[in-house]
Amino acid sequence: MNAIPEAFIQKTAELSEEVTKPFSNSRKIYVEGSRPDIRVGMREILQDDTSDSMGAEENPPIPVYDTSGPFTDPDIEIDLMKGIPDVRTAWINERDDTEFLAGPSSEFGLQRQNDPELANLRFEHIRTPRRAKAGKNISQMHYARQGIITPEMEYVAIRENVKLDELRKDARYEKLLRQHAGENYGASIPDIITPEFVREEIAMGRAIIPANVNHPELEPVIIGRNFRVKINTNIGNSAVSSSIEEEVEKMAWSARWGGDTLMDLSTGKNIHETREWILRNSPVPIGTVPLYQALEKVNGKSEDLTWELFRDTLIEQAEQGVDYFTIHAGVRLKYVPLTADRVTGIVSRGGSIMAKWCLAHHEESFIYTHFEDICEIMKAYDVSFSLGDGLRPGSLADANDAAQFAELETLGELTKVAWEHDVQVMIEGPGHVPMQMIKENMDKELEDCYEAPFYTLGPLVTDIAPGYDHITSGIGAAQIGWYGTSMLCYVTPKEHLGLPNKEDVRVGIITYKISAQAADLAKGFPGAQLRDNAMSKARFEFRWEDQFNLGLDPERAREYHDETMPKAAAKVAHFCSMCGPHFCSMKISQEVRDFAAEQGISEIDALKKGMQEKSVEFVEMGAQIYNKT
Amino acid sequence: MNAIPEAFIQKTAELSEEVTKPFSNSRKIYVEGSRPDIRVGMREILQDDTSDSMGAEENPPIPVYDTSGPFTDPDIEIDLMKGIPDVRTAWINERDDTEFLAGPSSEFGLQRQNDPELANLRFEHIRTPRRAKAGKNISQMHYARQGIITPEMEYVAIRENVKLDELRKDARYEKLLRQHAGENYGASIPDIITPEFVREEIAMGRAIIPANVNHPELEPVIIGRNFRVKINTNIGNSAVSSSIEEEVEKMAWSARWGGDTLMDLSTGKNIHETREWILRNSPVPIGTVPLYQALEKVNGKSEDLTWELFRDTLIEQAEQGVDYFTIHAGVRLKYVPLTADRVTGIVSRGGSIMAKWCLAHHEESFIYTHFEDICEIMKAYDVSFSLGDGLRPGSLADANDAAQFAELETLGELTKVAWEHDVQVMIEGPGHVPMQMIKENMDKELEDCYEAPFYTLGPLVTDIAPGYDHITSGIGAAQIGWYGTSMLCYVTPKEHLGLPNKEDVRVGIITYKISAQAADLAKGFPGAQLRDNAMSKARFEFRWEDQFNLGLDPERAREYHDETMPKAAAKVAHFCSMCGPHFCSMKISQEVRDFAAEQGISEIDALKKGMQEKSVEFVEMGAQIYNKT
Repeated sequence: MNAIPEAFIQKTAELSEEVTKPFSNSRKIYVEGSRPDIRVGMREILQDDTSDSMGAEENPPIPVYDTSGPFTDPDIEIDLMKGIPDVRTAWINERDDTEFLAGPSSEFGLQRQNDPELANLRFEHIRTPRRAKAGKNISQMHYARQGIITPEMEYVAIRENVKLDELRKDARYEKLLRQHAGENYGASIPDIITPEFVREEIAMGRAIIPANVNHPELEPVIIGRNFRVKINTNIGNSAVSSSIEEEVEKMAWSARWGGDTLMDLSTGKNIHETREWILRNSPVPIGTVPLYQALEKVNGKSEDLTWELFRDTLIEQAEQGVDYFTIHAGVRLKYVPLTADRVTGIVSRGGSIMAKWCLAHHEESFIYTHFEDICEIMKAYDVSFSLGDGLRPGSLADANDAAQFAELETLGELTKVAWEHDVQVMIEGPGHVPMQMIKENMDKELEDCYEAPFYTLGPLVTDIAPGYDHITSGIGAAQIGWYGTSMLCYVTPKEHLGLPNKEDVRVGIITYKISAQAADLAKGFPGAQLRDNAMSKARFEFRWEDQFNLGLDPERAREYHDETMPKAAAKVAHFCSMCGPHFCSMKISQEVRDFAAEQGISEIDALKKGMQEKSVEFVEMGAQIYNKT
Repeated sequence: MNAIPEAFIQKTAELSEEVTKPFSNSRKIYVEGSRPDIRVGMREILQDDTSDSMGAEENPPIPVYDTSGPFTDPDIEIDLMKGIPDVRTAWINERDDTEFLAGPSSEFGLQRQNDPELANLRFEHIRTPRRAKAGKNISQMHYARQGIITPEMEYVAIRENVKLDELRKDARYEKLLRQHAGENYGASIPDIITPEFVREEIAMGRAIIPANVNHPELEPVIIGRNFRVKINTNIGNSAVSSSIEEEVEKMAWSARWGGDTLMDLSTGKNIHETREWILRNSPVPIGTVPLYQALEKVNGKSEDLTWELFRDTLIEQAEQGVDYFTIHAGVRLKYVPLTADRVTGIVSRGGSIMAKWCLAHHEESFIYTHFEDICEIMKAYDVSFSLGDGLRPGSLADANDAAQFAELETLGELTKVAWEHDVQVMIEGPGHVPMQMIKENMDKELEDCYEAPFYTLGPLVTDIAPGYDHITSGIGAAQIGWYGTSMLCYVTPKEHLGLPNKEDVRVGIITYKISAQAADLAKGFPGAQLRDNAMSKARFEFRWEDQFNLGLDPERAREYHDETMPKAAAKVAHFCSMCGPHFCSMKISQEVRDFAAEQGISEIDALKKGMQEKSVEFVEMGAQIYNKT
């Protein structure tokens, strides 16, 4: 019997409706790979034609990378109560190296599954967990090192290219694909991403595909310096705030607006059940910090944490389908004193929990000492490591200090250990760092951690703007992304002040999509400038609807425009409220063009006479350009 | 008889009240210079004591640079109908090199002043204009080159230091003043700013103080690469939107939130009268683009513009008190064809107007050919040049192209001409530039324009986020500010979509204050990290009220915090809604500190036994640090 309250069901129905709203004038497309079940979803933004006065031209659809999964596919019925369709089950089955378990093999997982009290909030379609067969390693890194290109690898290759190979053959895109040379600080970005390139990068440890076999709903995504810069969003309840519905809603919003991965950082009630709802509805990889839940299990007393409890939590979460774990294995006993003189001490929750544990027990961190045991768990489900920066600076004052860099070196040491187990690894980074000190972080990470992907929070480049830390950090994120960070962890306007609501999630994501795009452009990632160029052309041609639709947040752009120019007629006006008709530089600029085109060469002759000594120079330049027009 | 409508009077009274709201727990202070009428206003943010559990300590007030002028001085009664008190009249009088005119010497100014139809919107306390006596040059640059340190120069020196000399002698600030080494790309920032240093920089042309003798209300501000990075805000009505009250309101908001200078870009009705209201109430330098008003005078027909009309407009505005003029003298006829193949043509309004004029007349720009005549006007009132970048790129696609750089070279040539007249100059810069191409802009400006201050709009580092262009441009602004730009022209969320309202102005300003602060920190400007450090300490010590007050936007921070933790008790809680009590890393971190302090050396001995081979290293580090605590 269904014990889920009617109000909850109704709420999820409303949510389903909300998160499946189509993006205006866009369509979902799929690019098929070498087999029909490799179907990579993308969004195509359709464009209006250029008006007659501007040259009457067809403007082709602009394909964009799409994280929204089935939510924006009108052919798929979304019911958050049931979860979204799976993508990877056939691929996992084919490999024939996993087996289904009778049920959760973690004590806690079993207990939660069998607790009748939880029926009112338990997801109703829990999957049977699976795990590697005895002696098998099922990580993408393991396959890559065996020379195997998995469907996941092919999927991400197609996804990264966003149809670039096709567009290059289409004359309509020629101008739109023009791009400035990048500066990528030693990355090796190929002209087109191939499945074999993906395999090599994963084998080398330079990229990861976080993809737990127990999360078949996910659309694979690659995180690495030679690929598009990704963004992560954090959600999660706390003891003080939020419910399951709210978290599911934030997850769907995150995917809709462009979050590439999502971390569920819940520390409040019903963490296990909340996570199940999120996983079963998430097309993006899910990360967690298992230590948070472990701490809840000992009622917040760090000193009561044990390896056994932590281990059970890892297995519990791995069997639910979490794709990557933040593991604070670098917070070693000997580093704790290095933080005593800091302005802001230890600001990572995981870091402070482990620091307290180490001091209370006078022992080395059990996470560090059991690191190889953890690797065994990771490779049995293909959970990726996100090696946590528990000693990251919590203020500009503490940036790049001894504690931070000591931990980073340890993360490098542990990366090697994980790679001996063919377990995928990324490295978490700061935090709060002034601009002139950001590059040192990137360089040191590449060196100390052997080019494992860097995954940074911000960094915030100043501490004086609470309420605007999406911006203080978005500035640092753009820079560190340019220098080589693979994934940027978003920060919302509520950072340091409260838990983000839905609107904060949206603003945080758009800000970080900006940073990631700026980084891709600066690195010269192939095709990255396409959307910018399309936007600029639409802007010049006063195609207002196209400008809205090509933007990262069409709804917000439309809303702002309509505040001062609400009439539908204004959407086709060849000016806007900023300047009014007389002052429109775009309009005048077009007149300049028209004038040049009309007058042609004869005009140049006239100019020559009028211009006397300056004429030769002018004609040389002018004639050349006018002929093109 | 007063013809100003009652509704208008009431509205300005409301505004007066709103813009004089004090910042919570702050006080206005004045630092006196070498004479009692040099009184530099600053804001001091008072702080709570550190709680007993965190070490019971007094936290000293934090002085901050303050652009809000008399609006935040409770001892000054603000009445927007009357204008704000003047600051500089005595200094100007003493120099005895100016004379009062009978009235406006521009035809248009005279006509507006005598038009009875305008009585209902004319400011009631128009100042008698003054001008240099025949043969006199009254520019700050001229004085500087004569070896004269003006009160304006002393004022900005005091202002830049923000009490740093005093704080350095006060032990309470010792830790708070600690700062990371900067990287300033060849700037020469001294350890403390002296009036003589200011004079030298102005004499060399590396800095300017825009300060028209007809704007005595202004509090001098210096713009140069060796000083704090400044921000400019743009306001102004258009034919489509806005009224005088709204513009005055935006001006006062701009000053309140931190705008260092303000440009009135009105292109709508009653530009002359709107400007008068703004100037008489503005404590910050006011810039304009005289070409906009000139175009209004010929009903928007660029081709009807003449030098005589333009000249009259310059004089009209100079006599009202405009402090700097954007002059698009670099848009030369021969450069226009260079824009024909651009994706977005010419996007500067001024640039497109002049391009059209040049083409229509087949003549060199009258602004270029009359440049020395303009210099004569500038030095008679001390109006500074802001040499406009009429050919700046309007999209990433057009960044750093031939048109843009050709114009920049011409601006350099004109800088030399202006300097021959001892007229102050800054150079306007782009626009839309991907990150990897920003530094080239700065380097080229320094070289081509002989280190004249650079004043850039953004740049936007991607074009795909209309509605968020304060962020796309704030990223670029932080970078170019770091590289050496002296003033950043803000961009609001409405950019490309509509005219900013009051709230947009606020968001734009805070974003740019962030970029400017990030740049000051990166350059290692002395004292720049003080506020960051104070904030970080307040954060670690859970002094919530201090965190709000130390922030750039205390009201927004408080509002966000209260959304999830509204109770007054939460303001003293040692945790917040993000993590709740168990997960508070700050709290745990303090416990780590306390633990270390309590246990002292004997504990270290215990640790030694427990830690075996790691103990030696630990004790070495630990003992050293624990002793400090």
